[in-house]
Amino acid sequence: MLPIRSAAILSALLLAPGTVPPGDGPIRGFSSATARTQREWETKFQAIPNPDSLREYMRVLSARPHHLGSPRDSANAVWLLERFRSWGLDARIETFHVLFPTPRERVVELLAPTRFTARLREPALKEDPASSQQAEQLPTYNAYSADGDVTAPLVFVNYGIPEDYDQLERLGVSVKGAIVIAKYGRSWRGIKPKLAAEHGAVGCLIYSDPGDDGYHAGDTYPAGPFRPRDGVQRGSVLDMPLFAGDPLTPGVGATRDAKRLDRSAAPTLPTIPVQPLSAADAQPLLAALGGRPAPPGWAGGLPITYHVGPGPARVHLKLRFDWRLVPAYDVVARIPGAERPDEWVVRGNHHDAWVNGAEDPVSGAIAVLEEARAYGALLKQGWRPRRTIVLALWDGEEPMLLGSTEWAETHANELSRKAVAYLNTDGNGRGRLGADGSPSLARLVSEVARDVTDPETKMSVWKRSHLGEVAAARTADRRREARERSDLLVEPMGSGSDYTVFYHHLGIPSLNLGFGGEDDGGIYHSIYDSFRWYTMFSDTAFVYGRALAQTVGLATMRLASADLLPYEFSRLSDRVDVNLKEVQDLLTAMRDSIAEQNRQVEESTFVAMNDPRRPLVPSVREPVPPFLSFAPLQNGATRLKSATSRFESAYTAAMKDGASALDTARVSRLNGLLLRAERALAPVDGLPRRPWYRQLIAAPGWYTGYTPKTMPGIREAIEAKRWSEAETEAAELGRALQEEAKLLDEASTILEQSTREGS
Amino acid sequence: MLPIRSAAILSALLLAPGTVPPGDGPIRGFSSATARTQREWETKFQAIPNPDSLREYMRVLSARPHHLGSPRDSANAVWLLERFRSWGLDARIETFHVLFPTPRERVVELLAPTRFTARLREPALKEDPASSQQAEQLPTYNAYSADGDVTAPLVFVNYGIPEDYDQLERLGVSVKGAIVIAKYGRSWRGIKPKLAAEHGAVGCLIYSDPGDDGYHAGDTYPAGPFRPRDGVQRGSVLDMPLFAGDPLTPGVGATRDAKRLDRSAAPTLPTIPVQPLSAADAQPLLAALGGRPAPPGWAGGLPITYHVGPGPARVHLKLRFDWRLVPAYDVVARIPGAERPDEWVVRGNHHDAWVNGAEDPVSGAIAVLEEARAYGALLKQGWRPRRTIVLALWDGEEPMLLGSTEWAETHANELSRKAVAYLNTDGNGRGRLGADGSPSLARLVSEVARDVTDPETKMSVWKRSHLGEVAAARTADRRREARERSDLLVEPMGSGSDYTVFYHHLGIPSLNLGFGGEDDGGIYHSIYDSFRWYTMFSDTAFVYGRALAQTVGLATMRLASADLLPYEFSRLSDRVDVNLKEVQDLLTAMRDSIAEQNRQVEESTFVAMNDPRRPLVPSVREPVPPFLSFAPLQNGATRLKSATSRFESAYTAAMKDGASALDTARVSRLNGLLLRAERALAPVDGLPRRPWYRQLIAAPGWYTGYTPKTMPGIREAIEAKRWSEAETEAAELGRALQEEAKLLDEASTILEQSTREGS
Repeated sequence: MLPIRSAAILSALLLAPGTVPPGDGPIRGFSSATARTQREWETKFQAIPNPDSLREYMRVLSARPHHLGSPRDSANAVWLLERFRSWGLDARIETFHVLFPTPRERVVELLAPTRFTARLREPALKEDPASSQQAEQLPTYNAYSADGDVTAPLVFVNYGIPEDYDQLERLGVSVKGAIVIAKYGRSWRGIKPKLAAEHGAVGCLIYSDPGDDGYHAGDTYPAGPFRPRDGVQRGSVLDMPLFAGDPLTPGVGATRDAKRLDRSAAPTLPTIPVQPLSAADAQPLLAALGGRPAPPGWAGGLPITYHVGPGPARVHLKLRFDWRLVPAYDVVARIPGAERPDEWVVRGNHHDAWVNGAEDPVSGAIAVLEEARAYGALLKQGWRPRRTIVLALWDGEEPMLLGSTEWAETHANELSRKAVAYLNTDGNGRGRLGADGSPSLARLVSEVARDVTDPETKMSVWKRSHLGEVAAARTADRRREARERSDLLVEPMGSGSDYTVFYHHLGIPSLNLGFGGEDDGGIYHSIYDSFRWYTMFSDTAFVYGRALAQTVGLATMRLASADLLPYEFSRLSDRVDVNLKEVQDLLTAMRDSIAEQNRQVEESTFVAMNDPRRPLVPSVREPVPPFLSFAPLQNGATRLKSATSRFESAYTAAMKDGASALDTARVSRLNGLLLRAERALAPVDGLPRRPWYRQLIAAPGWYTGYTPKTMPGIREAIEAKRWSEAETEAAELGRALQEEAKLLDEASTILEQSTREGS
Repeated sequence: MLPIRSAAILSALLLAPGTVPPGDGPIRGFSSATARTQREWETKFQAIPNPDSLREYMRVLSARPHHLGSPRDSANAVWLLERFRSWGLDARIETFHVLFPTPRERVVELLAPTRFTARLREPALKEDPASSQQAEQLPTYNAYSADGDVTAPLVFVNYGIPEDYDQLERLGVSVKGAIVIAKYGRSWRGIKPKLAAEHGAVGCLIYSDPGDDGYHAGDTYPAGPFRPRDGVQRGSVLDMPLFAGDPLTPGVGATRDAKRLDRSAAPTLPTIPVQPLSAADAQPLLAALGGRPAPPGWAGGLPITYHVGPGPARVHLKLRFDWRLVPAYDVVARIPGAERPDEWVVRGNHHDAWVNGAEDPVSGAIAVLEEARAYGALLKQGWRPRRTIVLALWDGEEPMLLGSTEWAETHANELSRKAVAYLNTDGNGRGRLGADGSPSLARLVSEVARDVTDPETKMSVWKRSHLGEVAAARTADRRREARERSDLLVEPMGSGSDYTVFYHHLGIPSLNLGFGGEDDGGIYHSIYDSFRWYTMFSDTAFVYGRALAQTVGLATMRLASADLLPYEFSRLSDRVDVNLKEVQDLLTAMRDSIAEQNRQVEESTFVAMNDPRRPLVPSVREPVPPFLSFAPLQNGATRLKSATSRFESAYTAAMKDGASALDTARVSRLNGLLLRAERALAPVDGLPRRPWYRQLIAAPGWYTGYTPKTMPGIREAIEAKRWSEAETEAAELGRALQEEAKLLDEASTILEQSTREGS
């Protein structure tokens, strides 16, 4: 079904010989002697992952709908457990009990000016057998929507993000007492009902506009990879930026006997009913809107004139759910560390899906399996990782990262003391390796990516991503920067996958990895995310599945067996500098922008620009933001910079000349210090109003969700014009950086001593 | 039909008292004594234009279809003549004989993979009586399309502009032997068949995408102002950037006995058949395309997945025209100058339309009438303009600026010697005054705009436009610049209206003026551009019609009666500096971009970014552009800067202290020098490959048409990588600036002498 020419080129590439030659340079954290042994094991490891195995795992795991609480979900868990055990691994299922509502009743009706009843149903396609497993499919719904029965005028709010409400305010349109209809996209979907409710709306509809992931983006399923007009995106609408995990057990594991909040007191639950719609169901509702035409940029891909409302469209929204606790089955395998069993490398991907989930999550979960199979084979050949490896296939990620969060909250003390790193994946496709997470792991992943071959180009995965960064840079300065940086760009971490509890809550160095950039799609969280879809439109030959297993496997193996933990802190220091400049620039930009707005108010620019037939609410004078003191943060950043620089010299010298003096006691002290270093960035008080989020370097934005805010305490205080809070948070982060620097200085002292003694 | 709230606000504004107080400051070109008298006449003038009269003119002129060659076109000309005469003006009709084809046969059929026959017809609407005058309407067609009968695969080329063909080349898609389908917009429509033919296409369809001026932009007619799905944009497809006017008589007037080219040798005629389509007719054709999905940004507002092709859509295009010469009736009135009858101020707007043309051109033509009526009234009260005023209502503008061009080519020698300025309008709406043309008239129009009241805001027209420039500025630097500039921004002149022959061919200082920025619409060149449309959706109260008559009338009166011609050359010098920097930056950007491309080719970035399933044709190494010498141009610009600066001081001093010494002989010599000054920028050799275009400061772009290219000789040579031509053209423009400076220096000497003698 691919165009003949592309398919021919693809086959040619897949058959083309050539891989990057096996690496032989130094490996971060290894002495030259241990690196040699490590490379031998890695060569053996890389040969094991196999596209046919990956395909077969996907076929089994995506064969039937397997959402949290479904029969197939537990069957898959048992099957996964058996796989781990069949490869000789010590595995078990850990069970939690989590709130997971499913629909009892769903009604969306247009009552005026015409009548229409939404179907709320994705049709089966004869081309795709998975789509016809309707008895097992979850209906289209937004998990954790409030129960409700409301009738109200409709208002179109574009993507329903803060700038859209700013625009509505300028138009003089209120959503108070209205049902809003928002496009999917540009935020975590839970932001949409949260903002709608904050603005007084009584209900929220979220639909997939064909301008985003439907026919305007490309051919639709089954002919192409994009969302058909009847396709619906399911998904959770909890307030993820407040805390992740079971809404009834914030901060503690949802064990059978856990103390639970009353549902009415659970703060992450939305307060209004929310329902997702297909484009086909949304069109009659949007077409029935009157009022002002939608502002520039708001119209999507439907063949109508988009209006804002309110009304005359009047909508009845009635939703009722079955609010049950269901079991979540985490499948967890352990390979005990031979020398440092109390240092853990945790690697995970979820196994639950909204429906069949071939892409999300199975395309990532199968890499975990293939890594596990390879480790099993290596163990039989005598491989013994120095540290403990924990392999996890989480349940209940889709509703709210439940399996990973409840497991990590249950084992929080142990993880805080022991976890060296958390490596996450969550689906995989074709293209370039992307990474987000801790800058201190940028060196590790870059070294690994130099040793893995990109299936399509036969250059190294590192080189392809590196050149991708060069190509994506918009300015000559950015291009120079990208070219000069030998480490891959590790992007700040938002939320939306299982790394959240590890990175944001516990401060464990984390990475989220995946290949992508070439596969289009609009089947996300629909019944069309199936084996047929994946094997027609994504990594059809499972060669990127192999590359993912090779990449994450190598990273795990290096973290597990390095003499010294392979963190590298210059990238962290660089990022602190960049983000510090950004928050300063943000304040300056706000000052300039408000001063300019005030000037325009004074000189009547607003009057000059206002069209009396489309009047906008006049701008008014606003207080210009004050200058703020970033001094404690600047001092922390400077201290960190010199500490990381000293550490880097000390580390390099010690690995070269001091190896002989790095005895077990020193290595233990060093690893202990390093393991604690990243924790310093996540002090126990956490962020204002959301203490569950402790990481001060990045957090999911309060009003973005998926998208991270760096230096969130400071940045969001500035955005919300809470000036004294911004200064407090700058001081807080300054203290954390001082603490981080102190730990690094202690480590440097030991390293320098070893070098002196060894050389 | 307006939203109640908006209508209420509008009425409030219209009823609101207040106008800008009558000006009393100095007027450019007038001594304090003559300014006083001038202001008295202007006050009387401003009181005359009347919305009811304007409405009535529009009702009459737009009552029936009145395209070139139609019975109503000549009837309107006679009616206009009678109006001029009824106000006591000396008026006559000048007739030219121009080539104007109309359709005999039009067929657009999809033959495969499905069948569909395009309707090629705009339906009548019961709400709008004008739309049902079908017997008199021109069919939907592109004037001057070649006759042709072709059957070929279809290719979608987005807007059909150069960057779209670059993109097609990267996709590996050729239009050779194909029929292309392009969206309207982003270029003069004649560019689309020109580029298509240059790339080997055998036919061209141009359609109105609802993403641009249809339902995605807003409510469609008759409910709203935008283009209905069945609306079609008629229009000419001649190669306007080569020369304007009758294709058979380049450079000379198309009088009855003019020597004419054979049609087969007429270089502005397209070589392939071209037909416009409605969105409704285009959709089945576009939906039938296969091949690559359209690149990002190409999809419009139709509810389909846009593909590029070629095929499988196969289209039959058959067009045959009646290639007749038809009479064009220019209606020209003259008010003889009392003192300097051989200095002419020419003011025009066309009167022909594609169909009923209430907006285009009648909303502008009625201002000319109202100005004429006011002059008639003033003449009866004893007003005598110093110079001759020529008022013209041109015919045949729509096909190719025929009436104005043939008239000006016929009277070229006289105009070259006598024309002080040409003031053009071509339609009018609500909002801010916009101006393009000669920077030397920026001071004039700014002074005028300070004395006219904006109907909606009651601030001066100058202030509203000035604040609009501040609001539109994207950067703090641009805002500062806009705030500091007391003259309105006069934008460079492209083409597309009757100023072309005056400004571009004859080098006469020109302005094109109009109010706009608030009215939306999608009825351009369709049967829906009617009295009903205009009076529901545009300047419904004709208050901007009045403001336009006041603005252009005042400008005309000042040009006609100034002691010294009111040109001001600092803005010209500023623009030369800005444009010189732009062409230098263009060359630098090309050097940088090609160097970067070469580097990316070397380092395999292209390979890294290429998706084997959507392969792009690889980039290759290209020669890096050489450094070029702009020295002669830099010298000319510097010389001009000092000459304009000296002139400005001399002019100011002379009008203040030297008035008594400015005797008739000196004034005559000065006005003579000034009148020649702008001609120096349009030397007789003109631009490379298009000598008809003589103006070296701006021209319609060879591949843009409407949009100007500043310093076109140099800029287009750089864009086309003709390096030595770029240097030759820089030297040519340098010489023209030296010549301009020399004339200004001569004028300065006289002014300085007068000041010495007078003070």
